[in-house]
Amino acid sequence: NATAKAELGRATWKLLHTMTLRYPEEPTQDERDALDNYFHLFSRLYPCGECAAEFQQLLKKFPPQTSSRRAAATWLCVVHNQVNARLHKPEFDCANLDATYDCGC
Amino acid sequence: NATAKAELGRATWKLLHTMTLRYPEEPTQDERDALDNYFHLFSRLYPCGECAAEFQQLLKKFPPQTSSRRAAATWLCVVHNQVNARLHKPEFDCANLDATYDCGC
Ligand SMILES: Cc1cc2nc3c(=O)[nH]c(=O)nc-3n(C[C@H](O)[C@H](O)[C@H](O)COP(=O)(O)OP(=O)(O)OC[C@H]3O[C@@H](n4cnc5c(N)ncnc54)[C@H](O)[C@@H]3O)c2cc1C
Ligand SMILES: Cc1cc2nc3c(=O)[nH]c(=O)nc-3n(C[C@H](O)[C@H](O)[C@H](O)COP(=O)(O)OP(=O)(O)OC[C@H]3O[C@@H](n4cnc5c(N)ncnc54)[C@H](O)[C@@H]3O)c2cc1C
Repeated sequence: NATAKAELGRATWKLLHTMTLRYPEEPTQDERDALDNYFHLFSRLYPCGECAAEFQQLLKKFPPQTSSRRAAATWLCVVHNQVNARLHKPEFDCANLDATYDCGC
Repeated sequence: NATAKAELGRATWKLLHTMTLRYPEEPTQDERDALDNYFHLFSRLYPCGECAAEFQQLLKKFPPQTSSRRAAATWLCVVHNQVNARLHKPEFDCANLDATYDCGC
């Protein structure tokens, strides 16, 4: 059912964007590997099979950018916009990331 | 701010529970490693720092169960109940997992 799929998508994007926006400004190599591995494992385990397959292709075309918080957050915004385009949703202005996501932590 | 932290928590639990409930019934060793690594990386990257630290302790006490879908889903339910107890929230009946989570995929 499409509503459940959309709700899962919204919940997931919220976690992923907030995660990149709290990622270290100056990550160590270990932290960089952690984020890269996280996204690859995520793309295998995401519970919508069709979405997971598409996202794996996207990761090949746009490998995770992990050199800094800004790089990671912008990369994910661009990738989400690729999904938006495929689903005929409007493009999100990546300049609005910080104003949109607040984890309160 | 507490509302943002709670919303992030709700979104995240939704992803995690749906993920374990779609995990293979009979996973390969590679799939078992993927889920185990996923939860450990997640516990490092979760954007609420205090929650991440607590969750890392929980993973040490209750390592991810990855032998089957049922094992993984029940394990996560038990771990979430540990968080509920710490936050003085009611215990969730793990018999209701399937009825509560539907990803529509
Ligand atoms: C990895 C992944 C793959 C998916 N693949 C598919 C698929 O193949 N088919 C399918 O039907 N659904 C897929 N989904 C679900 C889909 O992306 C949407 O989540 C769902 O359709 C609900 O859309 P929405 O319009 O509520 O906004 P969402 O796309 O869920 O976005 C939620 C909110 O995030 C903000 N936002 C929007 N774009 C961006 C951006 N670029 N950067 C930062 N914030 C943004 C907006 O405030 C928006 O309201 C996928 C979800 C994920 C997480
Ligand atoms: C890994 C993690 C660690 C966290 N640590 C903290 C912390 O240290 N401090 C803090 O203040 N907040 C923490 N949170 C947030 C907190 O767990 C809640 O998400 C938040 O307080 C909102 O609570 P809620 O009452 O809406 O229900 P949530 O606990 O978010 O649960 C959402 C829904 O899931 C269902 N549910 C409840 N229990 C279970 C269960 N055992 N199994 C399956 N489904 C269930 C119910 O339908 C519930 O309404 C953490 C979140 C996560 C994901």
